[in-house]
Amino acid sequence: MVEQKAKSTVTPELLDRLRMQVRSNPQTATEVIDQLKAPDAAEVINDLPLEDAALTISMLPVEEAVALFNEPSLERRHEILAKFELERAAAILSEMSSDERADVVRRLEMKYREQVLPLLPESVQNEIKFLLQFPPTTAGGIMSTEFIRIGPDISVSEALNHIRAVSKRRLHFYSIYVLDEDGSLLGALSVRDLLVANPHSSIKQVMRRYPISVNCMDDQELVARKLAKYNLLAVPVVDDKGRVLGYVTVDDALDVLVEEHTEDVQKMGGMEALDEPYMTTPLFSLIRKRAGWLVVLFLSEMLTATAMGYFEDEIAKAVVLALFVPLIISSGGNSGSQAATLIIRALALGEVTLRDWWVVMRREIFSGLTLGTILGSIGFLRVAMWSVFTDVYGPHWLFIGVTIFLSLIGVVLWGTLSGSMLPFILKKLGFDPATSSAPFVATLVDVTGIVIYFTVAAFVLSGKLL
Amino acid sequence: MVEQKAKSTVTPELLDRLRMQVRSNPQTATEVIDQLKAPDAAEVINDLPLEDAALTISMLPVEEAVALFNEPSLERRHEILAKFELERAAAILSEMSSDERADVVRRLEMKYREQVLPLLPESVQNEIKFLLQFPPTTAGGIMSTEFIRIGPDISVSEALNHIRAVSKRRLHFYSIYVLDEDGSLLGALSVRDLLVANPHSSIKQVMRRYPISVNCMDDQELVARKLAKYNLLAVPVVDDKGRVLGYVTVDDALDVLVEEHTEDVQKMGGMEALDEPYMTTPLFSLIRKRAGWLVVLFLSEMLTATAMGYFEDEIAKAVVLALFVPLIISSGGNSGSQAATLIIRALALGEVTLRDWWVVMRREIFSGLTLGTILGSIGFLRVAMWSVFTDVYGPHWLFIGVTIFLSLIGVVLWGTLSGSMLPFILKKLGFDPATSSAPFVATLVDVTGIVIYFTVAAFVLSGKLL
Repeated sequence: MVEQKAKSTVTPELLDRLRMQVRSNPQTATEVIDQLKAPDAAEVINDLPLEDAALTISMLPVEEAVALFNEPSLERRHEILAKFELERAAAILSEMSSDERADVVRRLEMKYREQVLPLLPESVQNEIKFLLQFPPTTAGGIMSTEFIRIGPDISVSEALNHIRAVSKRRLHFYSIYVLDEDGSLLGALSVRDLLVANPHSSIKQVMRRYPISVNCMDDQELVARKLAKYNLLAVPVVDDKGRVLGYVTVDDALDVLVEEHTEDVQKMGGMEALDEPYMTTPLFSLIRKRAGWLVVLFLSEMLTATAMGYFEDEIAKAVVLALFVPLIISSGGNSGSQAATLIIRALALGEVTLRDWWVVMRREIFSGLTLGTILGSIGFLRVAMWSVFTDVYGPHWLFIGVTIFLSLIGVVLWGTLSGSMLPFILKKLGFDPATSSAPFVATLVDVTGIVIYFTVAAFVLSGKLL
Repeated sequence: MVEQKAKSTVTPELLDRLRMQVRSNPQTATEVIDQLKAPDAAEVINDLPLEDAALTISMLPVEEAVALFNEPSLERRHEILAKFELERAAAILSEMSSDERADVVRRLEMKYREQVLPLLPESVQNEIKFLLQFPPTTAGGIMSTEFIRIGPDISVSEALNHIRAVSKRRLHFYSIYVLDEDGSLLGALSVRDLLVANPHSSIKQVMRRYPISVNCMDDQELVARKLAKYNLLAVPVVDDKGRVLGYVTVDDALDVLVEEHTEDVQKMGGMEALDEPYMTTPLFSLIRKRAGWLVVLFLSEMLTATAMGYFEDEIAKAVVLALFVPLIISSGGNSGSQAATLIIRALALGEVTLRDWWVVMRREIFSGLTLGTILGSIGFLRVAMWSVFTDVYGPHWLFIGVTIFLSLIGVVLWGTLSGSMLPFILKKLGFDPATSSAPFVATLVDVTGIVIYFTVAAFVLSGKLL
């Protein structure tokens, strides 16, 4: 949140045109970017090849370059930085906000890191070292450290003067925390609280007590959910002794939630999370992340061939049975994916907890029976109607229809049940319920669906076709 | 953001225990809630039957009840309110924040609404009427109206005094906007900007020009993305003439994104979006929302039976072919779902735009060929290895293996291509790409997969098994 000179916003259409212009004509980039706010400029630069991107940013004044590097949406920040002269890279790093700087330094190659870090002021070097000790997806790994600390015993007007003095030195701060001598959190304040309070009151009279805080090792998703739940603009990050280390803001939380959403969706789609945008993920790593789960699913799905093998004699006697296999098993898969999706999301939002499994199971038994009866009836009608006009299902069409009807009820019920219960089981075992649940359910139901179908067929058609 | 008396936070485990205690013992609810912050209290109340929930809240002081009703996470707000005496309901409504109040009133039954609204102060009545004219998912439908308006020509110290005076009357404001005489937006300011500025400067010298704004009819998701992209705490909402009507805050944006995420996930899982938590959605409506897509998918999947029917003679001659049908078509479905998931998400995040379709297609052709070759090789190995030890695939096992190998390459390539291109086509046609793309692709690939498989088989096995 560095101050920048006022720039007007652009419509998405204009931005799109500018991106295309710059893509075909990279030397116009600096001029275009000069008119844009940093988040828009970042999008334009993301479209450029690395060399052009570095060249463009190197022609900007340092404070504009800093604003760009403070944008998490600017891709390849560490690679662009490494293209600059060391002095310029160091100048930009020193001015960046602490959280984004740590993020960039973390990705720099070790060799380059060793060259550039000694050029930074010692206080900045120490801060980077301090922040890099936290894993990148924890509260400590995403926090900023530029907050204002005040003591509980000064007056409101003293605090206001302190803030005025500090603000002139550093451009961005978000939060004001009241700490005791050990650095432990006593309370929180907003600038507005101070402005409205009686200037002669002491801080401990006007501060908000028991502020919500997070531990530095808490997972970033937990931090984001806490900010969202309690409608906070920022949450202080404390160590095990309750000392304030920094804070995480709500706009970081938004970024975290968008990132986690992407991971969830990719896991549900049956693949490893990419961690990078689709277009910039190297093709090889894209394929590797997809191949893993595809192979696992393929190996499990091989059981369908085994299952079908058990019923080879039945198929040979009544080839017509084979025709409906894809229809039957895909219905089980679809209803299973639906149920899995619903429950995974409800678990993630806390609408459903582990101890609700029994309620969910009852609801899903009823849903599965109803949905199965609907699909089964349509399936029966299809066989009946075709048999009126053609002879494709032979004289025993009625029994084939009944087989389809009963199998669909069984398969859809089974799909719904396994789809809704698997997320509970995964969560109980300590796994992320989103992990490939939907495709995994589909595979499970494919195999069992075949068994259900041919068992029903053996029962209904015994003495007729079989 | 109403001020409340300081309350400590609870751990999720303690909250869970309290929820269970209150569930089994509703008369302890008031006592438990009294110790909790409003978002935690809302969760406890959500677990109670409607009558108990209303009784519990009715025993709280008005300001505590208001804090609860300001929580969007409190479910059934309009139903609970309707259980209160009219005077109490009116007292709570008058004190609520404007955006949450509009949300509650919108859901009240018309008859009750007509009884309670006349008891509110006229200014509040007018404001409700004003907010209700906007559709609920637009910027106007989610905005708050409590902002501070100042003119451009007053001094910083005059502005500070004005804010102090206004703050004492209303408890919650977020933003300060600089308006001209017509109410048009000239600039924005934070309390911090004012505090740090020279007290004798005029507002127009210190305000931030060209603030980002949204139109009152903009969709809420667009508003949320704008707040996230530009790292804003709040964005002003203007009408077509540029006059400021209110503002949307970043915590509203968080709620909107979580809601849209849920809808996306449910659509990708092949069902209509629920709009309500899983547990409180009536079973009938849950089944209805699932049945629609299941039936559509079932009807399309019936084409598999038709497709299989064309190859009935081949199956009769070589029953062994039927055994591999589920394996082949599910591999196409899985790779198609993966590709669809990836592209839908990349489109939603703006990492990929419509004009990138050609780049994506090239990448996906290569990915599809590679993934298909991997799965095909595994499939061939399976046939080869089984044939060493058993006679299940007969003397022509080599040709069966080659059929499986080639079919898998074709089916996976086709799945990957259709999965990646369908979202582009849906978006180009103006539909939401998330709409059931994954299950739809799976169904499409099932049908075409059968055709690919048997065509390859006819070619490779002609003169041997067929």
